[in-house]
Amino acid sequence: MTGKLYVIGVGPGNPELLTLKALRILKEVSCICVPKSREEGSSFALSIVRKVIDIDGKEIIEAYFPMRKTRTQNTENPPIPPLTKGGEGGFKDCELDTKWQETINAVYSRLDKGIDTAFITIGDPAIYSTFFYLHDRLLDLNPELNIEIIPGVSSINASASMAKIPLGLADERIAILPANYMTDLKNALERFDTIVLMKVHKVFRNILNVLDETDLLNKAVYISKVGMEDERIIKNIRDVKEEDLNYFSMVIIRK
Amino acid sequence: MTGKLYVIGVGPGNPELLTLKALRILKEVSCICVPKSREEGSSFALSIVRKVIDIDGKEIIEAYFPMRKTRTQNTENPPIPPLTKGGEGGFKDCELDTKWQETINAVYSRLDKGIDTAFITIGDPAIYSTFFYLHDRLLDLNPELNIEIIPGVSSINASASMAKIPLGLADERIAILPANYMTDLKNALERFDTIVLMKVHKVFRNILNVLDETDLLNKAVYISKVGMEDERIIKNIRDVKEEDLNYFSMVIIRK
Repeated sequence: MTGKLYVIGVGPGNPELLTLKALRILKEVSCICVPKSREEGSSFALSIVRKVIDIDGKEIIEAYFPMRKTRTQNTENPPIPPLTKGGEGGFKDCELDTKWQETINAVYSRLDKGIDTAFITIGDPAIYSTFFYLHDRLLDLNPELNIEIIPGVSSINASASMAKIPLGLADERIAILPANYMTDLKNALERFDTIVLMKVHKVFRNILNVLDETDLLNKAVYISKVGMEDERIIKNIRDVKEEDLNYFSMVIIRK
Repeated sequence: MTGKLYVIGVGPGNPELLTLKALRILKEVSCICVPKSREEGSSFALSIVRKVIDIDGKEIIEAYFPMRKTRTQNTENPPIPPLTKGGEGGFKDCELDTKWQETINAVYSRLDKGIDTAFITIGDPAIYSTFFYLHDRLLDLNPELNIEIIPGVSSINASASMAKIPLGLADERIAILPANYMTDLKNALERFDTIVLMKVHKVFRNILNVLDETDLLNKAVYISKVGMEDERIIKNIRDVKEEDLNYFSMVIIRK
């Protein structure tokens, strides 16, 4: 009997935004796998969990997911490594892939010993989390693996709540775009009622220009670090300063 | 001192998908406003809440939100009444508006007496819930009203978890469309990586035709009643039968 893998969305940051199910399972499992974006850093997802459960006595597997450019990548905006079945795609031998494979092996070895394990992710697992890169590879190791994904409150929903604006009403159309799609942005602004822009910090001035051109500056709200202690909403997007920009931010445009 | 209004997303159906915050506040408040889509029916949102808290001793305000076509509407697909400030838009005197205004008055009178009140909605309040139709009108009555919106797990996120597919990875684009936008559908299928179609039951055959034309039938999953006891996933969309279709269903197309 292999253990069960629970993939758990822990919400955007406020520990009270965990679900009852997430809390119950995190209490039950003896092993928690926590993703980190920097090898030396601490896990933000784990810091949320620590506030609601006692992790003493549980094994913590720290999973470092490097997302940097490597010698095998040559695009301007390298994607997170597409860990396809068997490792095709040029990542097989690079350091990046090795790190990912280490995590897969670490998680799999616990499951193989019958140890139920939780893999935690910030927000909701289906919204830009790293888990799905591991999913196919874990099933490669054992197609019968018992995996349950437990949805969470995504930072998008939490941001809309904080800003007190609906993402959609009645028959409205919603687009969610990573902000580096600047060419698609105008098309989306035309065709959709609500446009959510993720990862805005690196292209913020470009976004302002497009919103200015399309006369939508007054319809855009900037939300930063939702669910965290220093969460912030800036209703007039022209007031956003360089120091306000960070990875945990988004812009919601509601026409 | 007026009472505080908490707008609470209670998740898609499984009571364990309530957040810790939702649970805490529902226990604390003495009044809960529950929306119903049929005047005679019971509230689905309340049935979720009843499974995790004891509502004895709490006042329950049943809010019936009629969404039928009325004599003042003449479009093919009437929207939910746009309750604009002061009731412009032709809804002022119709039965529809009267019912909505009754709810607004009922909620406001409790707040005005200093009674903290929770307005519960299925899923997440920002995703196609009725609350935002009330928001402006409540603020009309008192611009200082203290309103907090508590995000929940949306049926979209829960469906992706159940189907074990990501809505977005890395720099992917996500579109959420009510399925009656058949003309927009082809454009969205072309430009987005994941397309979520809501309210598919009434136009399901049309969707199948478009997916067939665009060679995406194999990329679409049908999810019904997620989070409810009879939740169901049909991975081969060609197998969906007439009797499988219902209001609580969606199609996720992942290219």
